[in-house]
Amino acid sequence: MRLCVINPNTSGEMTAVISRAARSVARPDTEITAVTSPTGPASIESHYDEALAVPGVLQAISDDPGAHGYLLACFGDPGLDAAREVAGAPVLGIAEAAFHLAAPLGRGFSIVTTLGRTVGRAEDLVRHYGFTRQCLGIHACEIPVLELESNPHTAEILTKACREALLADGSDVIVLGCAGMADLARTIGDRIGAPVIDGVAAGVGMLSALAAMGARTSTASGEFAAPRPKPYIGLLRGFGT
Amino acid sequence: MRLCVINPNTSGEMTAVISRAARSVARPDTEITAVTSPTGPASIESHYDEALAVPGVLQAISDDPGAHGYLLACFGDPGLDAAREVAGAPVLGIAEAAFHLAAPLGRGFSIVTTLGRTVGRAEDLVRHYGFTRQCLGIHACEIPVLELESNPHTAEILTKACREALLADGSDVIVLGCAGMADLARTIGDRIGAPVIDGVAAGVGMLSALAAMGARTSTASGEFAAPRPKPYIGLLRGFGT
Amino acid sequence: MRLCVINPNTSGEMTAVISRAARSVARPDTEITAVTSPTGPASIESHYDEALAVPGVLQAISDDPGAHGYLLACFGDPGLDAAREVAGAPVLGIAEAAFHLAAPLGRGFSIVTTLGRTVGRAEDLVRHYGFTRQCLGIHACEIPVLELESNPHTAEILTKACREALLADGSDVIVLGCAGMADLARTIGDRIGAPVIDGVAAGVGMLSALAAMGARTSTASGEFAAPRPKPYIGLLRGFGT
Amino acid sequence: MRLCVINPNTSGEMTAVISRAARSVARPDTEITAVTSPTGPASIESHYDEALAVPGVLQAISDDPGAHGYLLACFGDPGLDAAREVAGAPVLGIAEAAFHLAAPLGRGFSIVTTLGRTVGRAEDLVRHYGFTRQCLGIHACEIPVLELESNPHTAEILTKACREALLADGSDVIVLGCAGMADLARTIGDRIGAPVIDGVAAGVGMLSALAAMGARTSTASGEFAAPRPKPYIGLLRGFGT
Amino acid sequence: MRLCVINPNTSGEMTAVISRAARSVARPDTEITAVTSPTGPASIESHYDEALAVPGVLQAISDDPGAHGYLLACFGDPGLDAAREVAGAPVLGIAEAAFHLAAPLGRGFSIVTTLGRTVGRAEDLVRHYGFTRQCLGIHACEIPVLELESNPHTAEILTKACREALLADGSDVIVLGCAGMADLARTIGDRIGAPVIDGVAAGVGMLSALAAMGARTSTASGEFAAPRPKPYIGLLRGFGT
Amino acid sequence: MRLCVINPNTSGEMTAVISRAARSVARPDTEITAVTSPTGPASIESHYDEALAVPGVLQAISDDPGAHGYLLACFGDPGLDAAREVAGAPVLGIAEAAFHLAAPLGRGFSIVTTLGRTVGRAEDLVRHYGFTRQCLGIHACEIPVLELESNPHTAEILTKACREALLADGSDVIVLGCAGMADLARTIGDRIGAPVIDGVAAGVGMLSALAAMGARTSTASGEFAAPRPKPYIGLLRGFGT
Repeated sequence: MRLCVINPNTSGEMTAVISRAARSVARPDTEITAVTSPTGPASIESHYDEALAVPGVLQAISDDPGAHGYLLACFGDPGLDAAREVAGAPVLGIAEAAFHLAAPLGRGFSIVTTLGRTVGRAEDLVRHYGFTRQCLGIHACEIPVLELESNPHTAEILTKACREALLADGSDVIVLGCAGMADLARTIGDRIGAPVIDGVAAGVGMLSALAAMGARTSTASGEFAAPRPKPYIGLLRGFGT
Repeated sequence: MRLCVINPNTSGEMTAVISRAARSVARPDTEITAVTSPTGPASIESHYDEALAVPGVLQAISDDPGAHGYLLACFGDPGLDAAREVAGAPVLGIAEAAFHLAAPLGRGFSIVTTLGRTVGRAEDLVRHYGFTRQCLGIHACEIPVLELESNPHTAEILTKACREALLADGSDVIVLGCAGMADLARTIGDRIGAPVIDGVAAGVGMLSALAAMGARTSTASGEFAAPRPKPYIGLLRGFGT
Repeated sequence: MRLCVINPNTSGEMTAVISRAARSVARPDTEITAVTSPTGPASIESHYDEALAVPGVLQAISDDPGAHGYLLACFGDPGLDAAREVAGAPVLGIAEAAFHLAAPLGRGFSIVTTLGRTVGRAEDLVRHYGFTRQCLGIHACEIPVLELESNPHTAEILTKACREALLADGSDVIVLGCAGMADLARTIGDRIGAPVIDGVAAGVGMLSALAAMGARTSTASGEFAAPRPKPYIGLLRGFGT
Repeated sequence: MRLCVINPNTSGEMTAVISRAARSVARPDTEITAVTSPTGPASIESHYDEALAVPGVLQAISDDPGAHGYLLACFGDPGLDAAREVAGAPVLGIAEAAFHLAAPLGRGFSIVTTLGRTVGRAEDLVRHYGFTRQCLGIHACEIPVLELESNPHTAEILTKACREALLADGSDVIVLGCAGMADLARTIGDRIGAPVIDGVAAGVGMLSALAAMGARTSTASGEFAAPRPKPYIGLLRGFGT
Repeated sequence: MRLCVINPNTSGEMTAVISRAARSVARPDTEITAVTSPTGPASIESHYDEALAVPGVLQAISDDPGAHGYLLACFGDPGLDAAREVAGAPVLGIAEAAFHLAAPLGRGFSIVTTLGRTVGRAEDLVRHYGFTRQCLGIHACEIPVLELESNPHTAEILTKACREALLADGSDVIVLGCAGMADLARTIGDRIGAPVIDGVAAGVGMLSALAAMGARTSTASGEFAAPRPKPYIGLLRGFGT
Repeated sequence: MRLCVINPNTSGEMTAVISRAARSVARPDTEITAVTSPTGPASIESHYDEALAVPGVLQAISDDPGAHGYLLACFGDPGLDAAREVAGAPVLGIAEAAFHLAAPLGRGFSIVTTLGRTVGRAEDLVRHYGFTRQCLGIHACEIPVLELESNPHTAEILTKACREALLADGSDVIVLGCAGMADLARTIGDRIGAPVIDGVAAGVGMLSALAAMGARTSTASGEFAAPRPKPYIGLLRGFGT
């Protein structure tokens, strides 16, 4: 089985973090292809960045048509519905995957994300996927995405934020709100004594489960069928058919 | 006052329909600038089309920075949150505007849209904006977007669909689910004897109201502040700052 | 176009405030008729006051049958559904209008109202109109309605309450919870650096938009059709038909 | 113990029906005072009628200050919140009471009411009291309120409507949607083989339970404290203090 | 009329408390049979305890088939749906009953329960029965169930917790979250000046109301019909048919 | 890795079906221990059966303390919260697992279960886990649990029911509502051309994902900590500690 893990931003360092997190939970017989988006923002920290990350995500999928599953490794799950229309295998976002695997581990979870301005998007996803009962709070550590790796205090700051979120919300589980935090999940979990869910690992696990069942995005209702062919013009003319 | 009405698809004929609908409700002292998206799909009929219409919408806004309000004239409200971060005046989507003006006209409304595969997106918007109580049904007439104008039976088919929706849902109001239907609102309303809301007209009215109050998108919580500057690479490098 | 703005309480001073707020946003070609309720309480600060303000609201509408829109200028929207059955043009409440125009300006709004005991009614309206996601908090400044004008510290107290609400709720927008605050919206907005929505201005804007579209309350489902004629007895016998 | 059952419309025949239904479930030591509203509509079949029934309800309560509980015997629960502010004992509406006692008898209930135009109000009450999960459908038999008694086919028509509602909704229980149906609950229940809840009987039962516990409307949060004294003018000047 | 009040735990002292609370509100012509569960945990303080209390509850019902109503006197309402399938009369849980009688006494209530770990179960019941709007907070006093009686400071600690809950939540009513607190409802209510609802008294009142109406659990949809007969094996073989 | 799959009813034939379904998706390095409950009903088709299946489920877990995950293979997820308190590894129910893996495959799913009387329980679980948006309908094929294997027409009847559910609900995915249907998922999926999710396979996949991440039930909030030790009496005395 081969899973394609797409970093929707264009920073290769972050792709490396994501790749390691994905491989750490993959079974020996599962191959991980980690891809950096070919176009768009260096990091995703606004609705603007996220919207403009989507063409790169869709390009990455069409560039690798043979995978058995696709994981969009940005916590805004950018382009997820569009990706499902064009991918030949199941597609998950890491927020989605994290919520699905965090929910059965306790009564409720807290999300700890990067910048406060991204809290709204996380809230929208929680509501869209159906986890309003389980999500007890969303907190920002105010470290920008690309500083997660370079800041020597990231682990410490995040651990503190996770511990405080757990107490403030009375929650059972932490969900990390950025793919760039993926490699810290176990460390923080050990320190705070509670499950810490990283969406990259969760996504690999859920895609493996779906693939083992032979399940893929349905086209039954037509919503996720292949898009009708039509001309595109201008900068994005290459996306037309 | 000048309002910029953006057609998120790249078909100039549809921009003409939208422009007429906008002007028909604008006050004499309100100027309407109708713009066709510079890049993307000829029509928006899938999540893929919609996602790839967003760069063109954002380009159109940055190409016309001085308007007093921006209206995204596609019923999927593509790129609305991103547009709010970069526009210097209020931004509305036509689905959003139509829901806000349909709600006070009765107990509930029915949406009549183009293709069945777009019903899911409409349902997501209804939920996101808070109209689950008022939206009593979403129906498709199965006319593709670009055939709305060319099909000689469009008015007849739509009128029938609207009348049936009203009865099936026990609703009071019809919301038209595509900017390409904008010029038919009054005709259908007269035929079925119930209010028929077109989002283009609704959006012009709401933007006029917001502008009269001097209201614009808030930056108080930070979510809709200008995006942090950062490099973009590849095809979309022009969107970076 | 002529809009009838009804002050549901019987204090003429407050009608003057409301009238000024309405005129400040109306287009030159829009005439505002401001009316004081002919019967009922001097101010509306309880469910009892509000219920007993409704006959006066309905009387005011039947006394001015030719307007192109009616605005109920009390934040409890008293008698709104009944008014819709008997008015020959669209009817809005100022809470309703304020919510509809506040929603598109950010992620969420806070309401700042007069007495704490009216918070429950505001909460009911938020839920009824569908703004539970967007309304992040309801706060009272504990100034009685009729002291809003006479108290020399009103602007200061309200500004403080609005600023605190914005921070406590993490909201983007303030909605003022009493028609008697209408003339303070711009002042407070300038001071706190965030949109402050007064329902009187919002209502005039939305009614103008509805009138421009030729839209009026639907009778399609029958709920808002004219009431069946029937005898009334006692004090209210004049309301029968 | 003495309970005051108020018929919010001004038809004495209907008060007699209500009175019999109340007495049929009252314990021997419970006295029922059945009161006809002193002013307002002969029957309540619109939002207009309901709003204008409220002054009479409030008058009836102030005319009989010594009861141990008050029941508002119209399915729209007119003036309930206002009544709670001024009554010296618990107040219930019959829709409210019916829902509370229907819920524990099965998974869900169907409401069968009089005219279709009143369905919206019932729906609002279901949502307000919290029974959206349990209320599986609301149906109209299209018999006007005052014809319930005179129409020789009422029992037959209602029985048919209740049976059909049970099947269509897959529900377990019927709630009768008008006080004028109160005397038919047992007959219909026997015929359709399912519990049929009349709000008048339910209200008497719940008020008896509350009175036995010594419970009354709380003034703790202040929302339901006595209204602040203030002048009223015009027709309703007698309601001021 | 005879009501069977079942203590789902196996501590006779607590049955005595429950019995007194039930009798204190029962009419003279209502007989209370108070029963201690024949098997299971000495107190119910976890999901494990609660699940294992259910066989005893079901046994107690089948041991006393002739009552006119059954009350499950543990705040987790253990085995309620199962009990409804096998009892020949209405069945209520005390959480359910308390919520139904607390709701009409104000805008919202707070629950004060024993151990923090039981808060989640209370939250699930609030949601299941439909009281999410009315339940404004759930608080634990951290006294284990069986210490409620022996701890000399119980009344004082609980009173303090109730008073704080009222203030923190802005609520109107307190619901006591354990049958073992039943005899303290009036004392605490007097001290805090707000209604304090004990589910045992509430349940007796509601069952009396249902019995007076001749209402019992419906079998109309089939969900609560008698279970299909089938063999049981092992320890629980006696429960088969 | 070793997963313990518990059949909560006491029919060994059904355990065999479950075991095969579990093994069909397990990786070569994953061992499946399939266990039949030691006590309780031969099949679970009512709330009564389900409640009385729980002691056997809890016994099975305590009889096999060393597994890396536990799956409760009955669609009512009997005893799930209790099991989480006592198991030393993650626990899932098959309804829960099926919902989590069905959701990302399309807009909505339909459940096809055995008897109509179990629909209510499925509906409760859908709501509890947060899938009200995604679950578009619940349908019964009216084959009793233990006839699923013996009835020669099961595959045909179920296929028809699934196809009809897909059309009636406009859904994308089918969730099979009984562990006894586990071996038919692929056959039906092939016939109807849409994903068919069996909770046994889904549960094995999700438990594998959780185990790979080293995640287990949280004790952070205390709700799912080990139950407090206490005496149990009577038939269930063995469950005390």
